[in-house]
Amino acid sequence: MLRIGVVGLRRGLTYLRLARLMEDRVRIVAACDKNNKMIDLARKEFPNISYYRSFKDLLRDSRVEAVVIATPMPLHAEQSIKCLRAGKHVLCEVAAFMREDEAEPLIKTVEETDLIYMLAENVVYTRPNLMVWNMVEKGVFGELVYAEGDYIHDCKSLNFKEDGTLTWRGRIRRELTGNTYPTHAVGPVAKWLGIGVKDKFLELASFSSGSRALPLYVREKFGSSHPGSDRGFWRQGDMVVTLIRTEQERLILLRYDTASNRPHIPTTHHLLQGTKAAYLSPRWSGDDPLIWIEGESGSDWENLWRYAERFEHPLWVEKAKGLGHGGGDYIVFSEFINSVRTGRSAINVYEASAWSMIIPLSKKSEESGGKPVKFPEYLWIY
Amino acid sequence: MLRIGVVGLRRGLTYLRLARLMEDRVRIVAACDKNNKMIDLARKEFPNISYYRSFKDLLRDSRVEAVVIATPMPLHAEQSIKCLRAGKHVLCEVAAFMREDEAEPLIKTVEETDLIYMLAENVVYTRPNLMVWNMVEKGVFGELVYAEGDYIHDCKSLNFKEDGTLTWRGRIRRELTGNTYPTHAVGPVAKWLGIGVKDKFLELASFSSGSRALPLYVREKFGSSHPGSDRGFWRQGDMVVTLIRTEQERLILLRYDTASNRPHIPTTHHLLQGTKAAYLSPRWSGDDPLIWIEGESGSDWENLWRYAERFEHPLWVEKAKGLGHGGGDYIVFSEFINSVRTGRSAINVYEASAWSMIIPLSKKSEESGGKPVKFPEYLWIY
Repeated sequence: MLRIGVVGLRRGLTYLRLARLMEDRVRIVAACDKNNKMIDLARKEFPNISYYRSFKDLLRDSRVEAVVIATPMPLHAEQSIKCLRAGKHVLCEVAAFMREDEAEPLIKTVEETDLIYMLAENVVYTRPNLMVWNMVEKGVFGELVYAEGDYIHDCKSLNFKEDGTLTWRGRIRRELTGNTYPTHAVGPVAKWLGIGVKDKFLELASFSSGSRALPLYVREKFGSSHPGSDRGFWRQGDMVVTLIRTEQERLILLRYDTASNRPHIPTTHHLLQGTKAAYLSPRWSGDDPLIWIEGESGSDWENLWRYAERFEHPLWVEKAKGLGHGGGDYIVFSEFINSVRTGRSAINVYEASAWSMIIPLSKKSEESGGKPVKFPEYLWIY
Repeated sequence: MLRIGVVGLRRGLTYLRLARLMEDRVRIVAACDKNNKMIDLARKEFPNISYYRSFKDLLRDSRVEAVVIATPMPLHAEQSIKCLRAGKHVLCEVAAFMREDEAEPLIKTVEETDLIYMLAENVVYTRPNLMVWNMVEKGVFGELVYAEGDYIHDCKSLNFKEDGTLTWRGRIRRELTGNTYPTHAVGPVAKWLGIGVKDKFLELASFSSGSRALPLYVREKFGSSHPGSDRGFWRQGDMVVTLIRTEQERLILLRYDTASNRPHIPTTHHLLQGTKAAYLSPRWSGDDPLIWIEGESGSDWENLWRYAERFEHPLWVEKAKGLGHGGGDYIVFSEFINSVRTGRSAINVYEASAWSMIIPLSKKSEESGGKPVKFPEYLWIY
C-alpha cells in the first residue's frame, strides 16, 4: 500500500478519483493547493484526506511516501527536486521541466536519492499506442525508420483568465517560441524507438508559422484594446514543427498546435514507419487506426483492431478506457505504483528529460532561425 | 487548333490518348523517342503521327507549334530551352529542372521568347485540390497559416532495370539527397497560398531518415552481391521531410518517401490550415477528404463532398476523373491549350522554378546538416 500526496488539485483530482479504483495498492493521504476553492471542492468528494495550502506542509507530512506533482508546468522541476530531497518518490505530470538548466539538477537528484521518479506521460499508454509498442517489440515493424507525433488541440481559452489577463499558459505563449508541450507527441514514439535504451536523439530543428488564430480570438473575445489582439504580442506561432534526428538515422516529426481553429478530437496523432509495417492513427472520431503489415495485409491498409487479439499489450485493461486520456491516466498511475514496488521507473528521469528537453532546444533552434541544435550527452546512460 | 509534338513516349502516350478527347482544340502531329520499341507501340495505336528518333528532328518539324516534354527529369530544363529557342511553346512534365544553375537560363529563355511555358503539375487539378483552391479564393479558409504536401509512393522497382543496373531514377537515389520529386506535394499548396502572386518561399530546411527499405529490397531481389544491398550505396534516405517558411509567415511541410513499404494509394496527401477552416486529405482508399469550416461545421470534421455543390471548382469536369492522376492529366493538358490561347500560363515558369528549386535547395540543406537555405530572389516577380 503506497501512501500518496497530491500537489495541485485542478489536475490532481483525477488521481484522487483513480486511487479509489486501486484501493488495494494505493491510498491518497494528503493533497495541497494554494487555492482554497479547489480544496473545498476536493474535500466534498474526499473528506478523509489531509489538505494543505502549502507545498512545504505536504512535504513535512511523514505519512506521504510518494508525491504526484500536478501543478503548472513551470513548477515541475523545482517541486520534483524538493520532493525527492524530502525522501519521497515522484510521479510528475508533463513536462519534467521547461528550462535546459533544470535537467541536470533533476537527474542528479534522482541518482543521489535513489528514489523513483516517473513522468506521468499518459499517451504512451493509450490502447493503440500500447498495441503498436507491443508489435514493435515483437518485430512486426522490422527496423524502424520514421515516426510522427502530434499534439493538436485548440486550447486558446486556457491562455486567459475571465478578465483577459494571462494564465501561466498564456505567459508561455507570449514569452517562448518552439514546442512547449512535446511529451504527448514524442512519448509513445520514443518508447517505440527505444530512445534512451538503444537509440538517442542527436539533434533537432524547429520551425513555426506566424501567430494568427490567437490574436484573432483575442480581438473577438476581449476587443482590440487587449494587447494580445496584436500578432506581435505572441512569440509562439500557431503551428510549430520540430524534426529530430536520432543516432540510428531515424527521423521524428513533431507537430504542436494549440491555437488553430479546428476540431481537436483526437488531440494526438501518431505514425510509425518500419521496414516491414506501418501505422497511421485516426484523423478524427470517424476514423479507425490503420495498420499495414508486410506479408499479412495485402495491398491496402487494415483496421488496427483486427490485430487486437494477437497484439493487445499486456498492460492494457479494458476498464481503463473511460478513465481519462484514452485509458492512459489509469495505466500511468498503475505503472507508477508498480515502479515504486519494483524499483524500476516505467518512464525514468532520463527519458523524461530527453522528451522535455525538446522545449528549450526547440526554442533555441527557432531563435537561431531554424538551425539544428544538439541534445546534451548527459541524457544518455545506455 | 494547336499542333503538338510529344517528346518521350513512355509517359507521352498519355497525351496522345488525351488529345483524342480534345480533337476540336488540339492535334498531336509528331512524337519522338530514342527507343524504337516505344515508337512501334505508339504507332500501332496512333498511325497518323510523324515519329522521330531524334529530338532535333522533332524541333525541325515546322508544323509543331508546342511541345510536351515527357522525358526523364534530368533532361527537362535543357529540352525546354531548346524547344523555346526553336519557337515552340512548352508543356513540361515535372520537375522543371533538377539543378539550381538551370533555373535562370530557363526563366530568361521564357522571358526572351515570350512563348508559353507551363509545368504539367497534375496534382494541382485533382477534384479535392481544386475544390479547396476554390474555397481559399472565396475566403472560406480566412488567412492561411500552415500547409502540408506529401508524395509517398513505393517506387522501389523503378530504380532498376531487369538486370539490376540503375535507371535514371536509381541514379538519382544513389547520387542525391533531399526531396528530388517535390512538385506533386508542393504544387497545390503553392497555388492555395498564392506563392509567386502574393507570398514567396523564403527558405527551407531538409532532413532525412537513413536508407533502409531500399537496400533490403535489393538484397531480396538481386542478392547481397548487388552493391545497392549496402545502405551506404544510397545517398537518399527513405523519408525526406522539408520545411519551407514563407514571407507571410506561413509554414509548409513536405514529405517525400518513394522507398518505404506501405500501401501507396493515394500517393499524395495534403493539409491546409487557415484561421477559419481546415482541410485534411484521405489517409487511404477507405477515407473521404475532411473539411472543417468555422460557423458551419459544428464541433467535428465533415465530408468535403458535402460542399461540392457550393464549391466545386469551375475547372473540374467529371469526365476527367478516369483519365489519369485523379483527373489532373486531362485538366493540365486542357489548361495548357488555354494558356497558349490566352497568352497566360496556368503554371508559369516562375512557379515551376520555385517548386522545382526545392530539389537543389533541399540537397544543399541536407548536405549542410539541415541548415536553412534561402530561395533566390529572381524567382519572384510580383
